[in-house]
Amino acid sequence: MDTPTGRRLPFADLLGIEITNAEDGHARGHIDLSEKHSSNPNAMIAHGGVAYSLADTVGGAAAISVAEGVTPTVDMRIDYLAPATDGRIEAVAEVRRLGGSVAVVDIEVTDGDGEHVATARGTYKTGGNRSGTPWTEGRN
Amino acid sequence: MDTPTGRRLPFADLLGIEITNAEDGHARGHIDLSEKHSSNPNAMIAHGGVAYSLADTVGGAAAISVAEGVTPTVDMRIDYLAPATDGRIEAVAEVRRLGGSVAVVDIEVTDGDGEHVATARGTYKTGGNRSGTPWTEGRN
Amino acid sequence: MDTPTGRRLPFADLLGIEITNAEDGHARGHIDLSEKHSSNPNAMIAHGGVAYSLADTVGGAAAISVAEGVTPTVDMRIDYLAPATDGRIEAVAEVRRLGGSVAVVDIEVTDGDGEHVATARGTYKTGGNRSGTPWTEGRN
Amino acid sequence: MDTPTGRRLPFADLLGIEITNAEDGHARGHIDLSEKHSSNPNAMIAHGGVAYSLADTVGGAAAISVAEGVTPTVDMRIDYLAPATDGRIEAVAEVRRLGGSVAVVDIEVTDGDGEHVATARGTYKTGGNRSGTPWTEGRN
Repeated sequence: MDTPTGRRLPFADLLGIEITNAEDGHARGHIDLSEKHSSNPNAMIAHGGVAYSLADTVGGAAAISVAEGVTPTVDMRIDYLAPATDGRIEAVAEVRRLGGSVAVVDIEVTDGDGEHVATARGTYKTGGNRSGTPWTEGRN
Repeated sequence: MDTPTGRRLPFADLLGIEITNAEDGHARGHIDLSEKHSSNPNAMIAHGGVAYSLADTVGGAAAISVAEGVTPTVDMRIDYLAPATDGRIEAVAEVRRLGGSVAVVDIEVTDGDGEHVATARGTYKTGGNRSGTPWTEGRN
Repeated sequence: MDTPTGRRLPFADLLGIEITNAEDGHARGHIDLSEKHSSNPNAMIAHGGVAYSLADTVGGAAAISVAEGVTPTVDMRIDYLAPATDGRIEAVAEVRRLGGSVAVVDIEVTDGDGEHVATARGTYKTGGNRSGTPWTEGRN
Repeated sequence: MDTPTGRRLPFADLLGIEITNAEDGHARGHIDLSEKHSSNPNAMIAHGGVAYSLADTVGGAAAISVAEGVTPTVDMRIDYLAPATDGRIEAVAEVRRLGGSVAVVDIEVTDGDGEHVATARGTYKTGGNRSGTPWTEGRN
């Protein structure tokens, strides 16, 4: 995977993560599954960490597209809906909330048949200081 | 990583995950970090998917140690506490609840200095007999 | 809140939860906010437990509409998107996955202006017959 | 429930939440269960929102004890371990991570027999600006 400056990201490369789009709070990416992604020596069933790593990376790309600075993951929940067995898995991410200190991002992971593989929701730290959002105005 | 029958697990091997213990609802494992785990081309900061994949694998090993059959992950939440920068990260998992259909497992990930890197909590499906689980048949 | 047999549910009544629809894996309900829901003695800002309790109840109604028997909540994650300050908050739930042992349900909570207040995702146990579930016997 | 200035908090009063201690990142509180907390017209089984509301409130008290300003809940995950049927449920909260923008808090809910009822983990927004934590130094 290339950064905007053309540098490669080692772990994304190890897994074959490709980000194809990231703007305005939305991002998209995929992994072409192969035997190395399997959790099983006998059959191709992708390890849960494959869909997670794709979701986390694409979710972060969506957050970066609208927030200032680096946006590390604070927490993420992933729910597995069906096993990923072969072909391409694709993730689509959308920023649901963008606050002064955190962003909430939803990520859907599907397989080549459009079947849902996993659904994830992450909180990312943001660096921008946005005054006057409903959030910063006071909630407890 | 070897299975009980000596077969290797491809994704665990790709990441260098080693499980060193799994019995009575507890499990332990680690990854020796190297450049391939980095999310960053300039500095060694492990991608969030590294700690997650370790946590998911060690948590599953704890579940398998007390539940019958395959125990696919239903959902997992991970909270990142500090960046993992080098050396070994270790995960310790403990089954918190074991029911007829699901198990709840807590996993703590620390670095070589004993510093907390992440804390995760997963729900794993339990109870199927080894053949013909929904997971292997096409999860439902 | 009335059950199908016309009996009232005490905690739902205490909070003013009304379920208006539940069929085919979808459900809808609301709470009309008043001072008792506030977390704050000086201003009406609903306590986080209000949106949560609504989400959990409506999510359970969606699960019950397609699963047999009682469907206790296994786990739930809620993300708060904006404060709920007055008027009606409404929840819409949709079953995302229905398996033999668990269902995954998404719930969106909005306020009277259609603004998102919270988004939640729960795992509910499914599959038991109505009598003798682990929940009623002493959950396992 | 009294605030430090002696004012009452409506929703905490409605549910009977009492906070008995909050300092140095730890807090403790309880609810004495009665019929109003039940999700069931026939038997006393506390609604999931009862343990959640207690956990959220005690977790927030732990966060406030070490963070500056108001600490609204960003997100929370709760896992139910056993039904709460009567007597007192108690929550103990501990801040696991305190960063410049968010705090992670663990909360354990037990019943009068010391049995685990639920375990929760929340992210709370914090207002303090703490420079030089591992978190703010860069993680992605």
